[in-house]
Amino acid sequence: MIAEILNIGTELLLGHVVDTNSAYIGRKLAGIGVNLYHKATVGDNKPRARAALREALSRADLVIITGGLGPTEDDITREIVSEVFGIPQIHSDEAMNHASSLLKGRGHQSLSSLERLAQVPEGATLIPNPRGTACGFIVEKMGKQVICLPGVPGEMEAMMELTVIPYLARLDGGGEIITSRTLRICGPGEAEIEDRIRHLLHGKSNPTIAPLVSLGEVMLRITAKASSLEEADVMIHRIETELRECLGQDIYGTEDDEIQHSVVRLLRERNLTCAVAESVTGGLISHKLTEVPGCSKVLGLQVTSYSNDAKVKVLGVPKEDVRRHGAVSRGVAIRMAKGILCLSGADISISTTGVAGPTKDDHMHSIGLVFIGLAWKYGVTCGRFEFFGTRSEIKERAAKRSLDLLRRHLLSHH
Amino acid sequence: MIAEILNIGTELLLGHVVDTNSAYIGRKLAGIGVNLYHKATVGDNKPRARAALREALSRADLVIITGGLGPTEDDITREIVSEVFGIPQIHSDEAMNHASSLLKGRGHQSLSSLERLAQVPEGATLIPNPRGTACGFIVEKMGKQVICLPGVPGEMEAMMELTVIPYLARLDGGGEIITSRTLRICGPGEAEIEDRIRHLLHGKSNPTIAPLVSLGEVMLRITAKASSLEEADVMIHRIETELRECLGQDIYGTEDDEIQHSVVRLLRERNLTCAVAESVTGGLISHKLTEVPGCSKVLGLQVTSYSNDAKVKVLGVPKEDVRRHGAVSRGVAIRMAKGILCLSGADISISTTGVAGPTKDDHMHSIGLVFIGLAWKYGVTCGRFEFFGTRSEIKERAAKRSLDLLRRHLLSHH
Repeated sequence: MIAEILNIGTELLLGHVVDTNSAYIGRKLAGIGVNLYHKATVGDNKPRARAALREALSRADLVIITGGLGPTEDDITREIVSEVFGIPQIHSDEAMNHASSLLKGRGHQSLSSLERLAQVPEGATLIPNPRGTACGFIVEKMGKQVICLPGVPGEMEAMMELTVIPYLARLDGGGEIITSRTLRICGPGEAEIEDRIRHLLHGKSNPTIAPLVSLGEVMLRITAKASSLEEADVMIHRIETELRECLGQDIYGTEDDEIQHSVVRLLRERNLTCAVAESVTGGLISHKLTEVPGCSKVLGLQVTSYSNDAKVKVLGVPKEDVRRHGAVSRGVAIRMAKGILCLSGADISISTTGVAGPTKDDHMHSIGLVFIGLAWKYGVTCGRFEFFGTRSEIKERAAKRSLDLLRRHLLSHH
Repeated sequence: MIAEILNIGTELLLGHVVDTNSAYIGRKLAGIGVNLYHKATVGDNKPRARAALREALSRADLVIITGGLGPTEDDITREIVSEVFGIPQIHSDEAMNHASSLLKGRGHQSLSSLERLAQVPEGATLIPNPRGTACGFIVEKMGKQVICLPGVPGEMEAMMELTVIPYLARLDGGGEIITSRTLRICGPGEAEIEDRIRHLLHGKSNPTIAPLVSLGEVMLRITAKASSLEEADVMIHRIETELRECLGQDIYGTEDDEIQHSVVRLLRERNLTCAVAESVTGGLISHKLTEVPGCSKVLGLQVTSYSNDAKVKVLGVPKEDVRRHGAVSRGVAIRMAKGILCLSGADISISTTGVAGPTKDDHMHSIGLVFIGLAWKYGVTCGRFEFFGTRSEIKERAAKRSLDLLRRHLLSHH
């Protein structure tokens, strides 16, 4: 089956909204073996939207339209689908009841808006919308189908998940499945990783391995094509095993895992608590850790001591150390880690001190220089790093690397 | 002038990459009065890309292509433009020199890749790429133009900014300009804001005012169409003045300002320092404040005390208060704010305590309940809030609201 996506909305052309919908739909279609060869966007303009829909139907078996299903005059999707298919619009009690029950209690219940939400092309199958007022619908004529969904990402996604994907998967069945799996790595750079897995990268066309660099980490995406999901999974599993043999502990997670998830998981498994003293990362490590549900069991105390005064008074870093070496130094990083370990009574601690920019510090250390300290009951250690990028990027890289150092320490020492 | 965008890249259809480029280009074109009526995406497939380009040229005067300019076999943009325009590709010394000088020292210098980067349609004008190896180019034939740019956002944006936009602005000149300005508000909800500015919203078609809700704040976008930028600016300024009369201090900033920028600016102007004690926001307030360059002048100490033990030991919250009211209470929020004020010696402090979920706390407080405390030399205050959303969303809303309370306090008390 060949599909196209048509997005309707002037706000997409003006660039007020970034179209994340079609990437989502593209991934979902690939996962059930539906080929997507083309996507297009037009504004809230009937002649142009009609022409775009006709064009799409001339090439594809299925067109998924997003947007233009709201209750205002600008919402043209119902009309253009009816016109292109030559089907009248009729009133749907089901769509009306859904919209009015959702709008009840919200104060605004204009009858003409409600009536627009209740119009659908005759013979259409409704798609329930669990998150919003506008139902979607599927229309079919002469072997061509159009599926209309709202443009609001949360609504569209819920409707794809609950109705559209199961429907298309039943309908199609025959196509080639494309599925992928992502392995996530923090620490070594892209070039180093490619060197270590070069024999696996070379000459592979199915599955493929694609390295993707994001801020402070590298992802390896394995993508397989096969006639069934089971077959694709076996192919991916085989390559994943080989990659894990090459990269070992460098792989911290898969898919949407982030480094803080691995850290919290390890701390919980080992029944340990951790504390953080942040200077250059400014609270970001703490923020990341507290994004993980259940982190309160493993978090001791986090202190952001941006000023030297706070480092001395709260963390007990000797004034003399700060004066002699500057706050951005190995000695201060270690003292900060020890200070927070002692203050919090946690089992392990990390500290960061460095220069995030945009200007150098008073000791003229270069932007991006960061020391990361680690302290635990039986020892301390400190790493020196040079990160690059903007102020935010340096914070992000330093925070991820700190969490990765903690993760590696937990794996090897506890 | 009517333009279209054509994105070339299979990764965009598979949804591995979200297309942010065309929103960027859409905004830029609107800003110089070029009409964008259509955008399309195809994969790395020559017949389909050729057909899409022919179609676009049949409707528009200008087609901007992104992607497909790299050095591999999959990069088909040069070929399809040459074929559609019937112009041969030739070798460009300038493009070659640019690519080889950038690749020098990076280790990989395959001659065939370099040669691909040096190919351009005959008669094309090169577009320098300050951030990458592949130059872009402009081709013109029979009143139609095609502008080709790389798909990497940073490269494409630099080339648009430096070359394409100035070029198009000179070329066109006649079109209608669309420009906009955003006012940002934290605190009152969308419904309340709409009520207060209803008389301004009604019946306006130029400029328009569009309320946009994002996490924990509301943005009002004023968009004006006019024949010149100056005229549009005057129209926008007039509406902005009226909005400011209605909304006063509720507007904290404009355009890309975030609430932390306003807070740091006010603290610096008033020569004050601030400290933060975070429980439910888990370091996010501190992270936001330290994103602002120059924040170190105004930041005292930030403590994230997720555990009750840390609240008692470090911030001096009485154990009895925590036991009796629970950590999520007005009393504990105030004690935390006072504790960090005292510990840090700062002029003003904020504290947060609440339930971010996904489960309720031990006292069965509902998810989203947050107390925000504020302490300064002469007093304390505390607000009670009920935020909704996921764990991260509750953290984000609570952090923004805390910073906004601090901002309002600074405006009225200092």
